[in-house]
Amino acid sequence: MKLTVFLLLALAALGATSEPQRGSVWPKPQSTVRFHNNGFVIVSINTFRFNVTLNKCDILSAALTRYYKYLSLEREAGYSERVNFRAGSNEVPLGEQPLSSNSSYRGRIDSLEVELMARCEDTPYFGMDEHYELRVDSPDVPLGAKLVAHSIWGILRGLETFVQLAAPSADGTALHMSSCMISDYPRFPHRGLLVDTARHFMPIETLHKIIDGMEASKLNTFHWHIVDDQSFPYQSKLYPELSDKGAYNPLSHVYTQNDVKALIEYCRLRGIRVIPEFDTPGHTLSWGNSHPELLTKCYNSKSPLGPMDPTKKSTYRFIQNFFSEIAEVFPDRYFHVGGDEVSKECWKSNPDINNWMRENNISGLYNKLESFYINKAVHLIYSLNMSTIVWQEVFDNGDTQLDKNTVVHIWKLGSFMEELRKTTSAGYMTLLSSCWYLDHLKSGGDWTEMYQCDPHNFDGTEEQKRLILGGEACMWSEFVDFTNVVPRVFPRASAVAERLWSDRSVKDIPDATQRLDEFRCRLLRRGVHAQPSRGPGYCPGEIF
Amino acid sequence: MKLTVFLLLALAALGATSEPQRGSVWPKPQSTVRFHNNGFVIVSINTFRFNVTLNKCDILSAALTRYYKYLSLEREAGYSERVNFRAGSNEVPLGEQPLSSNSSYRGRIDSLEVELMARCEDTPYFGMDEHYELRVDSPDVPLGAKLVAHSIWGILRGLETFVQLAAPSADGTALHMSSCMISDYPRFPHRGLLVDTARHFMPIETLHKIIDGMEASKLNTFHWHIVDDQSFPYQSKLYPELSDKGAYNPLSHVYTQNDVKALIEYCRLRGIRVIPEFDTPGHTLSWGNSHPELLTKCYNSKSPLGPMDPTKKSTYRFIQNFFSEIAEVFPDRYFHVGGDEVSKECWKSNPDINNWMRENNISGLYNKLESFYINKAVHLIYSLNMSTIVWQEVFDNGDTQLDKNTVVHIWKLGSFMEELRKTTSAGYMTLLSSCWYLDHLKSGGDWTEMYQCDPHNFDGTEEQKRLILGGEACMWSEFVDFTNVVPRVFPRASAVAERLWSDRSVKDIPDATQRLDEFRCRLLRRGVHAQPSRGPGYCPGEIF
Repeated sequence: MKLTVFLLLALAALGATSEPQRGSVWPKPQSTVRFHNNGFVIVSINTFRFNVTLNKCDILSAALTRYYKYLSLEREAGYSERVNFRAGSNEVPLGEQPLSSNSSYRGRIDSLEVELMARCEDTPYFGMDEHYELRVDSPDVPLGAKLVAHSIWGILRGLETFVQLAAPSADGTALHMSSCMISDYPRFPHRGLLVDTARHFMPIETLHKIIDGMEASKLNTFHWHIVDDQSFPYQSKLYPELSDKGAYNPLSHVYTQNDVKALIEYCRLRGIRVIPEFDTPGHTLSWGNSHPELLTKCYNSKSPLGPMDPTKKSTYRFIQNFFSEIAEVFPDRYFHVGGDEVSKECWKSNPDINNWMRENNISGLYNKLESFYINKAVHLIYSLNMSTIVWQEVFDNGDTQLDKNTVVHIWKLGSFMEELRKTTSAGYMTLLSSCWYLDHLKSGGDWTEMYQCDPHNFDGTEEQKRLILGGEACMWSEFVDFTNVVPRVFPRASAVAERLWSDRSVKDIPDATQRLDEFRCRLLRRGVHAQPSRGPGYCPGEIF
Repeated sequence: MKLTVFLLLALAALGATSEPQRGSVWPKPQSTVRFHNNGFVIVSINTFRFNVTLNKCDILSAALTRYYKYLSLEREAGYSERVNFRAGSNEVPLGEQPLSSNSSYRGRIDSLEVELMARCEDTPYFGMDEHYELRVDSPDVPLGAKLVAHSIWGILRGLETFVQLAAPSADGTALHMSSCMISDYPRFPHRGLLVDTARHFMPIETLHKIIDGMEASKLNTFHWHIVDDQSFPYQSKLYPELSDKGAYNPLSHVYTQNDVKALIEYCRLRGIRVIPEFDTPGHTLSWGNSHPELLTKCYNSKSPLGPMDPTKKSTYRFIQNFFSEIAEVFPDRYFHVGGDEVSKECWKSNPDINNWMRENNISGLYNKLESFYINKAVHLIYSLNMSTIVWQEVFDNGDTQLDKNTVVHIWKLGSFMEELRKTTSAGYMTLLSSCWYLDHLKSGGDWTEMYQCDPHNFDGTEEQKRLILGGEACMWSEFVDFTNVVPRVFPRASAVAERLWSDRSVKDIPDATQRLDEFRCRLLRRGVHAQPSRGPGYCPGEIF
């Protein structure tokens, strides 16, 4: 009554008698050199401190507090294992044997020197420098540890790596760390996670957990698909009626201005950008609850209202005002304007729309009507000194005048590699999501498929490849809400994160399986309820 | 970037302007008659009480406390909706209009008469009577409510129905209930949920949540697949070394005798049987951590140890002692002895096994070796005055002498309807699980497929059909643990629950979709984190 494949997995696990490698890093760093014949040191958690020369950097101060806590959690997991070891065996635990008997043991470290080589930046942005170098008991820092970076963002990534290097010894009596030097930086600058908060509302606490998981995965962009047909939880300053009438519940199922501000701040402290998406002209039915005049009246039986009405000046006045508010609330330079899945049926049924199209010499050309709207929307964004991201339909339409700062976001399945070739061949910066839809499920998990999808696997020149900025895992929320979204996102989004951070050559599935399992256990210890990724087992120190 | 099907769903939802029917019951009762031209009453929650004549019935006392709480939760959900209504509209809420203006409003009720017509039984058992009759403001109980049953189990099921009938009015100002008479009983006596606590350990708190969800779904059998190859969390009185060495962690990942006792009690109070499964002779690797002598030594490269060694007298002495303990700890008459997926490779490789088989004239007949073991195990259970449930392989083997009190459990996919025909044609009572494997996943959810699987859909006589006792949804835990098991079980197991409780004719998917959605919202209010089942939306009064 269990599939035989699991039995095989189980046997494989029992077959492996050697201690699995612990203290692995996810996503895998670009370069790791080990020293002293695979030497290791012990981190003295009780006396441990971060040594920092820098004074004023709120991101760093907050990070040190956070990462000290995370390091302590790793230590606590060890205690639980120690108990395990004791009860299950009469042998003397390894960590209590005279340490000199273990030739690769090097000694203790009790601090990490953190050196930021430039001024502390304030806000994460596209293309920020995330490079860092980390030395632990390397020849030039014997029995010490040092983290160096030219940006606070590199420091954040390096702190994450430092904590991941720490792992309880097999007997749980100490926290071990390899003697090594790590030189690391991301392969792609845009490593995102889309969360849809419109099909189901996600409470702020749930979003915080998701962002904690993003930080651990070195994802750097939270794409907030905040509103859609079904609900409008964003509480606008200018148009509070949008959420009063468009949210599932205008008090409990909304993001107030304070919520939004706090979420952006939570992300900023973790080096994570927040890109808002207010998808238009389709996917806007919830706007119509308070502003039906924005939408097209349909003269067919399917639905009373359709996409935004692109023929009315009042539509553009409204989005001008509304988008200006968004530009003020969200600090990132990028604004995702959507532009996907615009149904033409409603436009076709409406006589006023058709009259307008005749007057403007585009009779019957509904694609041109669509691009008329998108051009206006995109230029509105440009006028606000922001750059736009658009879903692929806007590019596919062909009629839209996009400047070369526009980013095209590929989402459709099927021939997405061919689509990447086309957009980059036309000179557009491009993001990939097609193979990373987290709402797609398979029995037994599907992270390996997501892991194996490489955004450079298309036929194109080096120049084209450079236009690939990265991609995003997408958590559409038709069938997830606060009850199940976190385990559905993690660790699958973390598999995508390694694809986007690590070198292209990192693709060893058995190795990744083991590292991802250790990584998901770290997430659990931090309270991020990532689901099991590799079959039967448990996490040392798991807290229920 | 969202599948078009969801857009259609959304439009459909917006298209439905009428208030969805609330106060629906899941699983659907056998018979519901409405009165007074779809009349309804208001339940006065603040003054509400249960009136009981019976004195000594601990199950009833506990149930009344619990169901009063559940009724209050429904009321609270109403408050949240009321706020919603107010903020979103300037109209006068319906509930605050003069009630006489609403012709179907009948008045208030402030109590439920609970009448148990027989003595209060102590422990749930196979075939227990679960029939009940419930009247709310029916012609013979005007502006009153009465629940009658001939067993405490019927009373429990009726209380669940009573609370589900209650629903906040559309404006949230009151708790409504239809004027109706419900006569109800289950279609099948065995309606189970299997939970595997060996591939991943499930904390007791998680199991409690699952049992809460079972109670709401009127499931009556918790099949505890407690140990397996990967771990042995059951802490035995006789052989504590089994969990000391076989559990993932001998302190934190075990079920102590107190845990087991408390879980059985938690179930008893809810009219839920607990059937233990100690699967042998396969799926026993974890037993070998402390008792390697029980297992067959393999002389092939795959694994050092295989299934139990059926040729040694000591094996039978051990299980005799161990099963006697289990018979004492678990009060139910049924013991699930497993018997599935016994690999013959290890037996084939072992010279001692082959010698023994020669001496016993079954050279090369490994199926006969398997049935030799199973016969002994099954007769051991009989001698303990218990009945056995076996996985289908034991029946398929053909050589096993099973008495007609043995229940065969069908789990394999493929031609399971044909298998049902075979086992019932041979005169065996049968359980179905093949189409209800909760570890099988599909994007967008798959409850409708599980819902449509009917255990009587095979070619057989009425007599054969009567041998189908019901079935079980199975939550194998290779890829679930405390992080995701509850939303994966519910509400999908509840879909199976309706198939096993309600009349065969209940199969209207659109109606079930709406009722299941309301049901899952009730689960959320009780703290059971069931996942969304029908696409975008939210639950009134959902607590994050």
